Amino acid sequence: MSEPSPPRGPSRRAIPEGDDRERLVCVECGFVLYDNPKIVVGSVARWGDKILMCRRAINPRHGFWTLPAGYLELNESTRAGAEREAWEEARAKLAIESLLAIYDIPRISQVQLIYRARLIDDTIAAGPESLEVGLFGWDEIPWDDIAFPSVRWALGHEKEAQASGDLTPRGTPADPAAPPAVPAAPQGL
Amino acid sequence: MSEPSPPRGPSRRAIPEGDDRERLVCVECGFVLYDNPKIVVGSVARWGDKILMCRRAINPRHGFWTLPAGYLELNESTRAGAEREAWEEARAKLAIESLLAIYDIPRISQVQLIYRARLIDDTIAAGPESLEVGLFGWDEIPWDDIAFPSVRWALGHEKEAQASGDLTPRGTPADPAAPPAVPAAPQGL
Repeated sequence: MSEPSPPRGPSRRAIPEGDDRERLVCVECGFVLYDNPKIVVGSVARWGDKILMCRRAINPRHGFWTLPAGYLELNESTRAGAEREAWEEARAKLAIESLLAIYDIPRISQVQLIYRARLIDDTIAAGPESLEVGLFGWDEIPWDDIAFPSVRWALGHEKEAQASGDLTPRGTPADPAAPPAVPAAPQGL
Repeated sequence: MSEPSPPRGPSRRAIPEGDDRERLVCVECGFVLYDNPKIVVGSVARWGDKILMCRRAINPRHGFWTLPAGYLELNESTRAGAEREAWEEARAKLAIESLLAIYDIPRISQVQLIYRARLIDDTIAAGPESLEVGLFGWDEIPWDDIAFPSVRWALGHEKEAQASGDLTPRGTPADPAAPPAVPAAPQGL
């Protein structure tokens, strides 16, 4: 006797009646999955001149460093989501300030909303999705082990916002592969 | 003989293994639907001192006036989405300027990103989801027949941005039921 097969769910590409795009449809029951882009919420959280970062305990990019961020949940505001992620990943309590950046990443159907924040205190600890967490001055950031390009963008944008005092939210860099706009400065962030 | 029943798809609430929240699961095949908040993209688009609005040909709020806006599609940037919606609903071509506002509406799991835009020309026409479209001075806006609170917020925020020159994106009003911050002025927008 064969093993039960794993659920397939919506897996056939088809244009539903009255629609104009292909959607995934379940071959078993006909359910149409209206898949949508996902919202990632996160923060660049400061304690003095240091920035909170987390080393990932999960894939993708296990072992690499990131900012506390993750998918917005249903019935959650974007600020509440950024606070929750900082708690889940770094046991950190945030005071959210303003929106630092909106990163449009259509290739992976993501919109990232990254807030500027202060840590309310410096009692941080690795949550279940982090191997370790840390507070880093600009020169101490593990630049060679950054998990995602948008982490690098957000760090560069935070430094730029601090230097210029311009708090208008940034967008996706014109050249997403470029290093942070501001080079590492010897005197920290 | 009974009619074939409509597809049920994921319809049972259950906490999947390794998760910490209830999700909708298909009783037939076990597929887990990770439902996420949805991103709405739209615009306040100007032609001179007039603003583009559309009267809805669809529910909810059939017959009421709205700004061109709708769900962001997969693999689409938020600016491209706002442009597409203006074309679909009003056959309007936009030059997107800056982000006017982010409205968090957790009750309905929506995040709305509303851009400021100029119309490239004034050849507009009702698309399939609009009964009619129009260009309105501030005093001509059909204030009594606005489709959604966020339409009212965006109009108020646009007027406020124009008056102050402050282009920092606005957020959800503290009192979402309040009328636009700036009362209708006799000399138009």
